[in-house]
Amino acid sequence: MIYITRKEHFNAAHRLFRPDYSDEKNLEVFGKCSNPNWHGHNYELFVTVKGEVDPETGFLINLKELSRMINELVVNKLDHKNINVEVDFMKDRLASAENIAIAIWEQLEGPVSVAGAALHSVKLFETERNFVEYFGT
Amino acid sequence: MIYITRKEHFNAAHRLFRPDYSDEKNLEVFGKCSNPNWHGHNYELFVTVKGEVDPETGFLINLKELSRMINELVVNKLDHKNINVEVDFMKDRLASAENIAIAIWEQLEGPVSVAGAALHSVKLFETERNFVEYFGT
Amino acid sequence: MIYITRKEHFNAAHRLFRPDYSDEKNLEVFGKCSNPNWHGHNYELFVTVKGEVDPETGFLINLKELSRMINELVVNKLDHKNINVEVDFMKDRLASAENIAIAIWEQLEGPVSVAGAALHSVKLFETERNFVEYFGT
Amino acid sequence: MIYITRKEHFNAAHRLFRPDYSDEKNLEVFGKCSNPNWHGHNYELFVTVKGEVDPETGFLINLKELSRMINELVVNKLDHKNINVEVDFMKDRLASAENIAIAIWEQLEGPVSVAGAALHSVKLFETERNFVEYFGT
Amino acid sequence: MIYITRKEHFNAAHRLFRPDYSDEKNLEVFGKCSNPNWHGHNYELFVTVKGEVDPETGFLINLKELSRMINELVVNKLDHKNINVEVDFMKDRLASAENIAIAIWEQLEGPVSVAGAALHSVKLFETERNFVEYFGT
Amino acid sequence: MIYITRKEHFNAAHRLFRPDYSDEKNLEVFGKCSNPNWHGHNYELFVTVKGEVDPETGFLINLKELSRMINELVVNKLDHKNINVEVDFMKDRLASAENIAIAIWEQLEGPVSVAGAALHSVKLFETERNFVEYFGT
Repeated sequence: MIYITRKEHFNAAHRLFRPDYSDEKNLEVFGKCSNPNWHGHNYELFVTVKGEVDPETGFLINLKELSRMINELVVNKLDHKNINVEVDFMKDRLASAENIAIAIWEQLEGPVSVAGAALHSVKLFETERNFVEYFGT
Repeated sequence: MIYITRKEHFNAAHRLFRPDYSDEKNLEVFGKCSNPNWHGHNYELFVTVKGEVDPETGFLINLKELSRMINELVVNKLDHKNINVEVDFMKDRLASAENIAIAIWEQLEGPVSVAGAALHSVKLFETERNFVEYFGT
Repeated sequence: MIYITRKEHFNAAHRLFRPDYSDEKNLEVFGKCSNPNWHGHNYELFVTVKGEVDPETGFLINLKELSRMINELVVNKLDHKNINVEVDFMKDRLASAENIAIAIWEQLEGPVSVAGAALHSVKLFETERNFVEYFGT
Repeated sequence: MIYITRKEHFNAAHRLFRPDYSDEKNLEVFGKCSNPNWHGHNYELFVTVKGEVDPETGFLINLKELSRMINELVVNKLDHKNINVEVDFMKDRLASAENIAIAIWEQLEGPVSVAGAALHSVKLFETERNFVEYFGT
Repeated sequence: MIYITRKEHFNAAHRLFRPDYSDEKNLEVFGKCSNPNWHGHNYELFVTVKGEVDPETGFLINLKELSRMINELVVNKLDHKNINVEVDFMKDRLASAENIAIAIWEQLEGPVSVAGAALHSVKLFETERNFVEYFGT
Repeated sequence: MIYITRKEHFNAAHRLFRPDYSDEKNLEVFGKCSNPNWHGHNYELFVTVKGEVDPETGFLINLKELSRMINELVVNKLDHKNINVEVDFMKDRLASAENIAIAIWEQLEGPVSVAGAALHSVKLFETERNFVEYFGT
């Protein structure tokens, strides 16, 4: 078993708030992240897959193919977008780093499996000092 | 003459567009950055000041004081904000990295001078791969 | 289960030595780190907690609260301090990166648990090229 | 149990290809990495070992000794070398990052054990955006 | 006047040697970099251009266009190549970082000027610890 | 004219204070940096030299030689030392980053010149967020 990781990135706007909270409650719970006019981040995304090395190629998975998958299924849908209003797989979900990482996992788990590897983790940096990691259920 | 630099950061949403352009023209000129629903960045800001070392303290400027100034005059106004709609010193300016850097220079030049140093440069990273630098007129 | 990490940092002086060793023995075992006049580091600290995402907030834990805890219980006691002589939770312990990481774990495990999450790991960089990681006993 | 990591680096040339493939097949499978005239990388290597802290020294392992081992057994054999043609432990192996990491593990597992610790992982960055990690069989 | 920088990267093999030197002389002057079997690097390239901000767009230069130029004229010719034998603009030049940076300047100076800006500097990292910078003659 | 930079690093303890100040005055002026029990940093040092490329070697200066000089004249005197009490060239100087950078310049200017290049700048990071740069008088 070996693990291989590909780093990709995207820039996006988001806002943390609940429509059923008052403005005061949103500010209390989500702080500056609840700003109604949005703010944004340069998200750094690390996708790790695991499996056996193919003796014919020396590869676990072709990284070009892994990168293509991540871009098609995740990055192109998030990059330069508003996560709260424009991203299908984030519909009706709070746009926290936790939830974005889980949603990215759901996007990639099946296709990575079809490509002959297993998704191991999704690691998402919201800032240089905050990141989440999800390993599936 | 010695140069000292302080790094600060802020997260913000922005959009590049001209109201007098059609949507097509905005997309052609500004690409994905013209997305009407905003996107955002983790901006990294490097402020460099220059001057003589004070023989009494060994300091060009007290970095605590420089950091306080940058936070009060720049970071607090930009962090977790929408640069196009919420930042007084960006009013009526296109929110390009170039214009943000110039506006930050204008905010800091006077106060740095009052504090006994001279502003040398404002360097602003919009992403890890794109940055602008302004040295004044 | 999801994992979230907060990065904090502190600068401190330390020295590796045993009072029951001769100077020669200290130099042989601890090398330049045994210098009697101290030396120091910019320590980078990554604290990872784990748990379930709260469906109401989308958070595993409020990062502001996690950061406050780390600063109050760990960073404020270490930053700009001499680890050998000024830090209560390092009393009678060799100031190796290993022991500092274990002591930081002990400081945080209870309070993180009270805050509704579980401490997963303490990762401490002594230099860019050396780091330790502790996951509890 | 604690984990300690040492970062080392080396620069090397390599090429991904199979002599039993045609040039077209090599290009199709390995892309630009199959260039017959070689290309190269700055490889970043992170070696993690695990074990108990020695109460006498506060160390899991003396990092000077760990660094010496990695340099003698791995880095000196790879640095400024052609991985396909000059590295004994890569003979008859495809020079993929996966295979290099596994081979480095095989070089280090025994000696780390003799030194009183256990090898936990070998993490190898081929570029800033691609890395593999191996934890043994 | 404002300065804007775009970071690009490429991986390549090279060798430092003079055919009119003996092997011993090459080793003495160029050290491990003279290895006849090549070695390689992940080169990081920072291209800085300068000029006035266009009041219509807020841009000094469209970064997409600058990136396209650098990729077409420089990166595509160097990436996954052997600098000594496959790169037209390095023909008959020693493949030192100094000479590569100068050659990149020569490739870009004219086209950047046609695009309405002025080339300010070419900064080339051969490793994380060594880089050269060229500002033209 | 071309510029080449070598990065080196050292860990050291220091303290900012004036013996002719009271403890209160030292705390007021130098903050936590005046702690009588010392603190320390991982200093990152970037030394830039400039000159013409030697057509015979393609080098401005042999980086091995530049690195050897910096280590012998600067790093070995500072690494794992107490800057206030153990470093000859910092005797009777406040151990601020500004003064350390100027003192490093004085150490290197002559020897770099003897080696056939000219010292251009000394850039010293005290933390990731604070650095000074000195270009000589």
